[in-house]
Amino acid sequence: MNEPSLSALLPPYRILLLGYGHVAQAFLPLLASRSEWLSSKLGARLVISGIGTRSTGYYIHPRGIDAATLALETHPFQRFAESSTRMESAEAFIQEGSARNANALIELTTLDPRSGQPALTYIRLALQRSLHVITANKGPVAHAQFELQELAHRHHVQFRFESTVMDGLPVINLSEYTLQAVGIQSFRALLNTTTGIVLRMIEQGYTLEEAISQAQRIGVAEADPWYDLDGWDAAMKTTILANTLMDGQLTPDLVEREGIRNLSLDGICAAALAGTPIRLVSTAHREHGLLIAEVRPQPLDTGDILHMGLGTGGLLSLETEAMGTITLIEHDTLPTQTAYGVLSDLIAVIRQSKHYL
Amino acid sequence: MNEPSLSALLPPYRILLLGYGHVAQAFLPLLASRSEWLSSKLGARLVISGIGTRSTGYYIHPRGIDAATLALETHPFQRFAESSTRMESAEAFIQEGSARNANALIELTTLDPRSGQPALTYIRLALQRSLHVITANKGPVAHAQFELQELAHRHHVQFRFESTVMDGLPVINLSEYTLQAVGIQSFRALLNTTTGIVLRMIEQGYTLEEAISQAQRIGVAEADPWYDLDGWDAAMKTTILANTLMDGQLTPDLVEREGIRNLSLDGICAAALAGTPIRLVSTAHREHGLLIAEVRPQPLDTGDILHMGLGTGGLLSLETEAMGTITLIEHDTLPTQTAYGVLSDLIAVIRQSKHYL
Repeated sequence: MNEPSLSALLPPYRILLLGYGHVAQAFLPLLASRSEWLSSKLGARLVISGIGTRSTGYYIHPRGIDAATLALETHPFQRFAESSTRMESAEAFIQEGSARNANALIELTTLDPRSGQPALTYIRLALQRSLHVITANKGPVAHAQFELQELAHRHHVQFRFESTVMDGLPVINLSEYTLQAVGIQSFRALLNTTTGIVLRMIEQGYTLEEAISQAQRIGVAEADPWYDLDGWDAAMKTTILANTLMDGQLTPDLVEREGIRNLSLDGICAAALAGTPIRLVSTAHREHGLLIAEVRPQPLDTGDILHMGLGTGGLLSLETEAMGTITLIEHDTLPTQTAYGVLSDLIAVIRQSKHYL
Repeated sequence: MNEPSLSALLPPYRILLLGYGHVAQAFLPLLASRSEWLSSKLGARLVISGIGTRSTGYYIHPRGIDAATLALETHPFQRFAESSTRMESAEAFIQEGSARNANALIELTTLDPRSGQPALTYIRLALQRSLHVITANKGPVAHAQFELQELAHRHHVQFRFESTVMDGLPVINLSEYTLQAVGIQSFRALLNTTTGIVLRMIEQGYTLEEAISQAQRIGVAEADPWYDLDGWDAAMKTTILANTLMDGQLTPDLVEREGIRNLSLDGICAAALAGTPIRLVSTAHREHGLLIAEVRPQPLDTGDILHMGLGTGGLLSLETEAMGTITLIEHDTLPTQTAYGVLSDLIAVIRQSKHYL
C-alpha cells in the first residue's frame, strides 16, 4: 500500500457526480474507504471535481477535492458547494467539468424511468465531451443502450451501467469479462424487490393497499408504486439483461409485460399455501432466432431454481451451452449495493482506460 | 462476423497444448466452435502449434494448424502428429514451441496433485520462456500460486487457472474484474463433487465401497478415491480460493482438513433423514487478522445457503462488506465445463495482452 503522502503525488482522476440521493450518499464513503487501495492499484488519485443536483445546484470545484477527504465531512455536499463555482444547469455543469479535464461523469439523477429523461440528455452530452459515463439509471440504458455505446465508442470512452440490473451483483461485467463465449441460451430471473415484498405481505393476510404503504414506509416502493407493480421496473431490467447477455436489440415496449395488478388476493394466498408462491418472473429465450423477453407473475414450485430466490434481493439463472445452468443470488438488500455497482464500474473504466493489468 | 477468408488474414495466436485427456479433448471442439467469433473479437487467428502427452509423444507442427480445422478431424491428435516433429520431452516441446513463437501454453497434464509435479516444472519453464500459461491443474496453483504469478509478472506474461476451482464458473475472473473492491470477509462452499455423490449414495443405503465403485464407474471418482474422500481435492481448491479472494498466503497443508473417512454410515443416514444431510464444506474467514481455512463434513440444515447446493456441481457463497451475501451455483457437471474455464482464461489472456477494449 502506498503511504497517503505518496498517493498525493499520483495524477488525479477527476469525477463529476450528478445527483446526490441515496446512491450518491452511499457511494462517497464507499469510494473513500477504498481510495488508498484504489490509488495503489490504479495509479491514480480519485478527486471529486463537481457535484450537482437539480434542487440544490450544480457546483464545480476549482481544483477538485480528494474523495477520501470529502467523505470525512459531516455534510460533504455543503462543504463542497461552499468552495465551488455554481453552474446554472446540469448541461453547464457537464461542459464546465469537461473543460476542466474531468475524466468521468457518474450519473445518479432521479428521473422519469419511462422516457429515460433528463438523464439521457446528460449522458449524451458527457459522452460527446469524451467523458466516461457510469449510470445507475435504467431508463437511458433500456431505451438507448446501443446508441450510447456507439457514441461512447466514437469518442473513445466507456459507457457503463452495472448497477441498473442487480445493484452491484456483477452480471454485466460478468458477461463482458468471463462469460463472453459461454453461449447464453436463455435466462430466468427475479429482478424486482417491491413485488416480492408486496406479494409476501399479501400472503401474510394484508390487503394490496396495506402492503403497498408498508413497502413505501420501509423505502422499497416508490411514491408511484405501479412502476414496480405493473412490471415496468422488471421490464427495463429484462431489456438490459437480454440486450447485454443475449445480443438483443430490444426496447422495454417489446418485452411482454404483465404486472401483479390483476392477481386476486385469494389466488396469491392459495398458491403460497400450496407451496408454490407467485412472484414476478423475468425470462428471455430465442424462438426461431427471435429473442423473446417476458415479465409475468408465475407460481414457483420447490423444484424451480427461482424458488431459491424467495426472500432474497434477486436471482438470475442462466442456461448456457458450455456451462449448463449457472445461478447468481444477491441475498441482501443493503444501501451500499447500488453504490458498489457504481464503484465496480469506475474501477473497470479506470483499468481499461489505463490498460491496467 | 468476419468471413473465414478474412480471418485467415489475421495474425496467428499460437497455442501449445500439453496433455490430451478429457479436458483437452473437450477444449479443442469448444475452441473451434468459437473460433470465428474469437477471431473477429480478438483480431487473431487461433492456431495450435503443438500437442504433447507423456504416453503418445510431444509434437510441434512446422506452421501450426488452425484450431477450427484441427477440431474437424476424426482423430485430431493423430492427424496433428503425422505432420509434426516429435520432441523428446515435455521440456524440449516447450522450448521448441517457444522458439517458434508460441504465445501461450495450455497445461492440462495429469499429475500428482499433492506435489503439483511435473506440471509445476512445465509451468515454470514456460513462464521463463515468456509464454502465457493457462492450467487446469490445482496442484501447481495451490502450492506455488505467488511464485508463479511473480514469475509471470517478471516475464510480462499471465498465469491463469480459472478452471481449477469450479470448472468454468468464473470465480477467479470474477474476483479480478468485478469484485476487487467488494471486501470479501468470508466464504463457505461445496467444492468437491465426489464426496457429494458418495454421501448421497450412502444415504440411499449403499455401503462406502459400493458408493466409491459406482462413483468410479460414472467417471467422477479417481482410481485413488481418497484424494477426494479425505478432503485433499477440497483443500487444494479452498487454498486457491482463499488466496485469490481473500489475499491469503496459504498452502494446502495449512488448511484444517477432515475428510469423510471416519463418518459412520448410520450417522450419515440419520442426518439425511433429519433433513440435514452431511456434506464436505469448505470455509475461510479471518480471526484477529489471521486467515483460517477449513474443510470438514457438516450437516446442512434447510435454512443454510449451502443446502441449495445439494445435488449440484458446486456452490460458493461469499460474505462481502459492500454487497452482503452473494451466492454462485454451478448446477450441472458437464464435460465442457472445465474446458470452458480454459477457454475463458485464453480469452482473458489475449484481451489483456492486446489491451483489447
